[in-house]
Amino acid sequence: HSMREIMYSFVEDKQEFSRYPIKAGRRSLSRSISQSSTDSYSSAASYTDSSDDETSPREKTQVNSRGSTDFCVKNIKQAEFGRREIEIAEQDMSALISLRKRAQSEKPLAGAKIVGCTHITAQTAVLIETLVALGAQCRWTACNIYSTQNEVAAALSDSGVAVFAWKGESEDDFWWCIDQCVNTEGWQPNMILDDGGDLTHWMYKKYPNVFKKIRGIVEESVTGVHRLYQLSKAGKLCVPAMNVNDSVTKQKFDNLYCCRESILDGLKRTTDVMFGGKQVVVCGYGEVGKGCCAALKALGAIVYVTEIDPICALQACMDGFRVVKLNEVIRQVDVIITCTGNKNVVTRDQLDRMKNGSIVCNMGHSNTEIDVASLRTTELTWERVRSQVDHIIWPDGKRVILLAEGRLLNLSCSTVPTFVLSITATTQALALIELYNAPEGRYKQDVYLLPKKMDEYVASLHLTTFDAHLTELTDDQAKYLGLNKNGPFKPNYYR
Amino acid sequence: HSMREIMYSFVEDKQEFSRYPIKAGRRSLSRSISQSSTDSYSSAASYTDSSDDETSPREKTQVNSRGSTDFCVKNIKQAEFGRREIEIAEQDMSALISLRKRAQSEKPLAGAKIVGCTHITAQTAVLIETLVALGAQCRWTACNIYSTQNEVAAALSDSGVAVFAWKGESEDDFWWCIDQCVNTEGWQPNMILDDGGDLTHWMYKKYPNVFKKIRGIVEESVTGVHRLYQLSKAGKLCVPAMNVNDSVTKQKFDNLYCCRESILDGLKRTTDVMFGGKQVVVCGYGEVGKGCCAALKALGAIVYVTEIDPICALQACMDGFRVVKLNEVIRQVDVIITCTGNKNVVTRDQLDRMKNGSIVCNMGHSNTEIDVASLRTTELTWERVRSQVDHIIWPDGKRVILLAEGRLLNLSCSTVPTFVLSITATTQALALIELYNAPEGRYKQDVYLLPKKMDEYVASLHLTTFDAHLTELTDDQAKYLGLNKNGPFKPNYYR
Amino acid sequence: HSMREIMYSFVEDKQEFSRYPIKAGRRSLSRSISQSSTDSYSSAASYTDSSDDETSPREKTQVNSRGSTDFCVKNIKQAEFGRREIEIAEQDMSALISLRKRAQSEKPLAGAKIVGCTHITAQTAVLIETLVALGAQCRWTACNIYSTQNEVAAALSDSGVAVFAWKGESEDDFWWCIDQCVNTEGWQPNMILDDGGDLTHWMYKKYPNVFKKIRGIVEESVTGVHRLYQLSKAGKLCVPAMNVNDSVTKQKFDNLYCCRESILDGLKRTTDVMFGGKQVVVCGYGEVGKGCCAALKALGAIVYVTEIDPICALQACMDGFRVVKLNEVIRQVDVIITCTGNKNVVTRDQLDRMKNGSIVCNMGHSNTEIDVASLRTTELTWERVRSQVDHIIWPDGKRVILLAEGRLLNLSCSTVPTFVLSITATTQALALIELYNAPEGRYKQDVYLLPKKMDEYVASLHLTTFDAHLTELTDDQAKYLGLNKNGPFKPNYYR
Amino acid sequence: HSMREIMYSFVEDKQEFSRYPIKAGRRSLSRSISQSSTDSYSSAASYTDSSDDETSPREKTQVNSRGSTDFCVKNIKQAEFGRREIEIAEQDMSALISLRKRAQSEKPLAGAKIVGCTHITAQTAVLIETLVALGAQCRWTACNIYSTQNEVAAALSDSGVAVFAWKGESEDDFWWCIDQCVNTEGWQPNMILDDGGDLTHWMYKKYPNVFKKIRGIVEESVTGVHRLYQLSKAGKLCVPAMNVNDSVTKQKFDNLYCCRESILDGLKRTTDVMFGGKQVVVCGYGEVGKGCCAALKALGAIVYVTEIDPICALQACMDGFRVVKLNEVIRQVDVIITCTGNKNVVTRDQLDRMKNGSIVCNMGHSNTEIDVASLRTTELTWERVRSQVDHIIWPDGKRVILLAEGRLLNLSCSTVPTFVLSITATTQALALIELYNAPEGRYKQDVYLLPKKMDEYVASLHLTTFDAHLTELTDDQAKYLGLNKNGPFKPNYYR
Repeated sequence: HSMREIMYSFVEDKQEFSRYPIKAGRRSLSRSISQSSTDSYSSAASYTDSSDDETSPREKTQVNSRGSTDFCVKNIKQAEFGRREIEIAEQDMSALISLRKRAQSEKPLAGAKIVGCTHITAQTAVLIETLVALGAQCRWTACNIYSTQNEVAAALSDSGVAVFAWKGESEDDFWWCIDQCVNTEGWQPNMILDDGGDLTHWMYKKYPNVFKKIRGIVEESVTGVHRLYQLSKAGKLCVPAMNVNDSVTKQKFDNLYCCRESILDGLKRTTDVMFGGKQVVVCGYGEVGKGCCAALKALGAIVYVTEIDPICALQACMDGFRVVKLNEVIRQVDVIITCTGNKNVVTRDQLDRMKNGSIVCNMGHSNTEIDVASLRTTELTWERVRSQVDHIIWPDGKRVILLAEGRLLNLSCSTVPTFVLSITATTQALALIELYNAPEGRYKQDVYLLPKKMDEYVASLHLTTFDAHLTELTDDQAKYLGLNKNGPFKPNYYR
Repeated sequence: HSMREIMYSFVEDKQEFSRYPIKAGRRSLSRSISQSSTDSYSSAASYTDSSDDETSPREKTQVNSRGSTDFCVKNIKQAEFGRREIEIAEQDMSALISLRKRAQSEKPLAGAKIVGCTHITAQTAVLIETLVALGAQCRWTACNIYSTQNEVAAALSDSGVAVFAWKGESEDDFWWCIDQCVNTEGWQPNMILDDGGDLTHWMYKKYPNVFKKIRGIVEESVTGVHRLYQLSKAGKLCVPAMNVNDSVTKQKFDNLYCCRESILDGLKRTTDVMFGGKQVVVCGYGEVGKGCCAALKALGAIVYVTEIDPICALQACMDGFRVVKLNEVIRQVDVIITCTGNKNVVTRDQLDRMKNGSIVCNMGHSNTEIDVASLRTTELTWERVRSQVDHIIWPDGKRVILLAEGRLLNLSCSTVPTFVLSITATTQALALIELYNAPEGRYKQDVYLLPKKMDEYVASLHLTTFDAHLTELTDDQAKYLGLNKNGPFKPNYYR
Repeated sequence: HSMREIMYSFVEDKQEFSRYPIKAGRRSLSRSISQSSTDSYSSAASYTDSSDDETSPREKTQVNSRGSTDFCVKNIKQAEFGRREIEIAEQDMSALISLRKRAQSEKPLAGAKIVGCTHITAQTAVLIETLVALGAQCRWTACNIYSTQNEVAAALSDSGVAVFAWKGESEDDFWWCIDQCVNTEGWQPNMILDDGGDLTHWMYKKYPNVFKKIRGIVEESVTGVHRLYQLSKAGKLCVPAMNVNDSVTKQKFDNLYCCRESILDGLKRTTDVMFGGKQVVVCGYGEVGKGCCAALKALGAIVYVTEIDPICALQACMDGFRVVKLNEVIRQVDVIITCTGNKNVVTRDQLDRMKNGSIVCNMGHSNTEIDVASLRTTELTWERVRSQVDHIIWPDGKRVILLAEGRLLNLSCSTVPTFVLSITATTQALALIELYNAPEGRYKQDVYLLPKKMDEYVASLHLTTFDAHLTELTDDQAKYLGLNKNGPFKPNYYR
Repeated sequence: HSMREIMYSFVEDKQEFSRYPIKAGRRSLSRSISQSSTDSYSSAASYTDSSDDETSPREKTQVNSRGSTDFCVKNIKQAEFGRREIEIAEQDMSALISLRKRAQSEKPLAGAKIVGCTHITAQTAVLIETLVALGAQCRWTACNIYSTQNEVAAALSDSGVAVFAWKGESEDDFWWCIDQCVNTEGWQPNMILDDGGDLTHWMYKKYPNVFKKIRGIVEESVTGVHRLYQLSKAGKLCVPAMNVNDSVTKQKFDNLYCCRESILDGLKRTTDVMFGGKQVVVCGYGEVGKGCCAALKALGAIVYVTEIDPICALQACMDGFRVVKLNEVIRQVDVIITCTGNKNVVTRDQLDRMKNGSIVCNMGHSNTEIDVASLRTTELTWERVRSQVDHIIWPDGKRVILLAEGRLLNLSCSTVPTFVLSITATTQALALIELYNAPEGRYKQDVYLLPKKMDEYVASLHLTTFDAHLTELTDDQAKYLGLNKNGPFKPNYYR
């Protein structure tokens, strides 16, 4: 299969992915793009290499401080700088460091040969180096052509991880890097850590014999998980896979807690809008919508909710929000926020009726929720007033403010806190340990959720950040409840 | 088996029921006891019959206005009064009335012969008369010896429902009434609506042949559900049963929304405590605990949380509560509230260290959470200062205020809003319709949760109360999401 | 002047008192009526004397344990019971006890001869006995014919305070008791503590020569303060008076903090309404309205505000409430709450348009806000369903639920926490000390607000309840801020 | 007097200004600096003139489109660009435009010759052009050497307002510009609009005879108001002045409402900190502190408060915050926020004890609250990680994150919403109209607060933004309340 075909199948996946209405699709993809486009420490740092030569890394010969050439990054000399960034990230990822310390003597990943395909950032580096500390060998590539922090890639390569990634890869580079990770002499991977499913797909298509011997796949993204379920449904998934996207802890943070903060941040950074007294309609009252509504209400906005699901609608009522159809409030609201996972939730007809100066943005998934395409017509004028902020101007002078061209506000115009990234990374590490060490037969050729107990372990590792102290059951209480003192404490379906 | 044995098995059930840590066990049982003990409209009404003669209803001969004697209530002459109460209840149960109207022409329960064993209140009467309107024949008895509203029982009996129940039954009366419902010539029940499992148990033990022909059981209470699961596990459940206790809509209202209000109400009615500035520790951060914490925080209390489950603990952190061990704050808090489903969460040792004037109460389940027994010692003085309020006085004069002797505060010292009862009753009605009409084979001899779609339907029927307007999917959107336009909208495990 | 005239002037005062739109007029008057009508500890206690003989106390001869007969109460034998109630109240009034301890050695009230006219409750007793402990001699009477706790009056009389008061005085008794306090041989008062102005008025009219020698009047109620300002304006106030009603601390507690809790409590106790999702309109966004709105919003209600004052209206906007005219929402709201201090805020015309089952109540002042008189017409049926709860039934069957016949909900259907009473009592004690000890010339013949510093002192005495720790200024900081290290910290106009 | 002397006196003022603990001193000064340093629309626009020549505007000869040379700006050719910015600002300042329309026919400022010294931004331009529309002639200069938006200055100059201001003036330029405004042939000012008092001071010192004939001064800043009070106290203020800084409406917005939003925005933009679960101590519970606490609590932080004033401390308790001394929590908190108006509230000793990774910032006033100077010692390393963000690194590697070097976070790292600027500008316009039209004798040679009624008018003009509808008193109600139907509705001291 040609790369083009593979890419094409990926595009098709995107079409179907829409079945999962709640989640913020391929969130991780955009995350680092956003990060690298902000004035963050690491990107400030990155700026220093703008004077770099334009030679493609594939054409360079580079040697790391250990004498190895088994890597391909922008500039190995940036390693020291990248190391410092990793060290700073470590300070905010104490859960992972704690896991590293607790498991280091056991080496639960001894013998594991992991190929990874994720964003390559300081936070990912902390994960990778934790895997190494636990005994694994790692080869790594980027899941996105823009999201690699070059200094971090250099630091990892310098310390012995074979990294093939740089910022600004071409499509051809992208697949070449993946191939370099997988197809190497004398080293055959037995574990996969993927984000988006490209690496998995590549191995499945190009190296079916290697793929069959993999002991487990850990997949983070909605899209990748969806592709795995499709493979499984089609009876073609020949290895156990773990869906870490849907762990309870990760879900709560990615959606409810994270969006509660990023809706405020995203709106403020782009528009400096004052929240007090603003009339806002939030389309969708899932976890993302709940987070947005709670934050805006708390800051003095008057919030309306639209919903298709009566159970969520009833929750909105009990939480103090009027549940309306969008058309009922479209002429009066100052802000529209979509969180549905649906498409064309805000139509051109509705945009036509919005007030002058009103804001429209998307917190849901992808870029389908607002019918942005309908705004690209000759009678409307687009005026870019800031990065991520367009004024759409109607013939009568009315302006509607469109944020991030309808893409995810939280990823385009805000940042993901390191604490949330720590939860994801810790979940990934535990999933790898579980799959690698599981006794024969525990996992079949299927897609699994992270076991409840491990989900709870991820949570417990993060409690120290808050100086939170768990109560332990007495023997007597555990017996009374019919529970093991160490958990799991809730049924698997508990959210 | 003797009645004593049956009762004994019931007591044993209570011991084991403790495995379900989240729910507020046998909530429905206590509910009406509480209601009938408060100064509510209906109980005020009941007061008028205190001058009634003391003859046992079993010894009376009564005839209703239709000439029937197939019932046994306190005084059939109270029917008119009870009718008025039912009419008032109807005003607050518009969902059920709406269901009645929508389904009346179809008569989905035509041919159904339902025996019911629930609290007999104006709200239950609205349910029963809805079942009748939809085509069912009903015979009814009380699930609790104290909770019958006599006027309502009279009104039901007068309109043709065979009711066997009165307030203040003896244990012998209780089982006699159940038997009268079931064991009647020329009428064999084919559906059961139970609350607590006593009716089910009685039929299972005494009339196994009738029991086998039942098309379905609908059970509301935690205890009853637990008994059904035990039967099922033992392979003895020969009819399909539906657990309506765990429907999403009912759960949210019984626990989160209801407790959010009743914690304030219960504390205020008993102690007149001012919430502002009070230090409160809430033990357990499940749905009940979340409701309590949110309400108290909103009213200006400083709230601490104890938890055994790291996922719930992390949620408490993110919601702004310090997670502590009880011993860390025991000396400083003004109020302790238990919501764990566990036992001995507050021990005598801890009660010894509480401040003078502090309050201790239970919102969780049963009466095991606070070790009340440990307080019944000679060195401590108990002083009853109001109904449901005891001062426990230490030798040094310290007073700790114990509410409802450690039983459920929300049921003992507050009331359950009719709106919540409406949700339960509507769920029961839909479950009966579903089981009665289900095609052969849909339900086996097992315990089922209410199908998601019906759960959603219960919710939608209650949206009109809030003048909430659901958005409908377009064909295009439904296709995009892969959903039916009429739902269900979420996976079964969605909470 | 005849008593009738005096009463008449009082009634006129009421007419004019309406100029103060924010305050909850004569709040203190109703307070204890409410208390004594609820199921409170003390009133439960009171119940025991219902078997008492019907002889008027004025016709009895009673002797206290010290051999004195200089008092007139219901039954001196109840003293022991009353003593216990006082002791319990002391536990919740630690600020006053603390003041008692701090000032006891100085005896700042040595030589003070105080006549008092207030509600006679356990809380007042703690105040009176504090005044005695600080050196004062006291004679006391009741400001309301219904509000006296007889046991407390007995306990005070037994310990040597000359009390003239009992529950259920006639109008004639009322003035006789006042006269007994003032007009006694060999004892001439030099300080007045009044609540409502009746005692002051009586002395001013009947004993002008005694009145002139008074060193200071402390007045708590809105009405009493208004009467003092009128006297002052008319140039007839010949002694300094202190308005303790408008102290910052007292105001915040009486209005904002107290109403934030009592609106929930009052609605729940009377109607068991569920707050979640309810549409509520609050008329008036002063301190009382702010408290009501905050509490209801926090419990999940959707709250609208009406206002006449644009500054308050803008605050409502910024706090997240839609500001509407009542007519805009009258057909959709479930609850109307008036907090304006105005009259006819809810008219018959508007009541006609309310929904079936909606609730209307008053938190503002007096009983003028809802046009209750307009509902007393033949076409409407009133049905009393509980104490303080009437259903008004329209010819078409629509019911509107009127609480407390339009009187103050917070006083009729809720209770005032002892903590709030403690703030009032402490403020009164400090005002008496200040006026009694003020150097010649500090206070002229006028009405004064409590000096800021004393207001701050009242607050600081109550901080211990919350285990709150104040920060002290360093010398350097005090100099930098131009403040005395011990306060006052804010300008007098600071609210 | 030399300029140096004048500047010196200004510096002295700053020393004394500290007496006003609540307000955020010279807020307006920093405001535009902050604005111009962010990625805002207008500054993005400004960027285009970076290619401008470096010639001083004083040395250029420029002619506007009307042929006039009576102005001095960076580049008159930028007028068109500035015009567009003014038009956009007009859209967010509907209150001012509304005032313009209502008063345009009356020309209440006909004959007024106003000299102004403020920040020169698009928002100020809307104010100036409103004054012109109402009949005034205006000459304008900048109150800050960095804050002028050059395009706006050009647009104003082009339309006939004599502006003397550009971004990046020298100190000498600053005073020259002021002088050009005041000292012009054939035009003598009769009104002053000042922000900081520099213009007032200059006229008072240099042109005492012109100064005496001024009909009124309107001053916005804390500093300027303080200087006026000093002049008044010294008996040297020979014209009436109006303090618009302390109007109720402006105060609420500048402090409570604005800070409620900017604390979140400022922290997020600089540190991307996640608020949920963070332990935060807020020093000072005035309006600014109240705003910060409410916002952080709402977003899930655990907030402690320090206070010196017992009344504010008691409010903090009732609002649900533990009141502590800083030392009690210094080791555990993640964030310290100062809002006191005091100095050295956070000392080096305390900074030494903070946790690794904790954040310290100032929302109060000036830059004195955190003892930043104490951190500039050799053993500590400063690392600038982003604009406005320094890591202070202790010898053991501990990092404390200092924001804006201890200057005001809300002004350095956030923006002031146009809505808040609109309130200030409208207040200034109304103050000018009032002073200019006041009948002889209404205002003496003193400093006045804006009359309550005008304060209310400012609020009412801003209600339309929220589609808020005021209720009007009936004649009967107005009489009952003793109020004029058009206000003022509250006493002057009402906050």
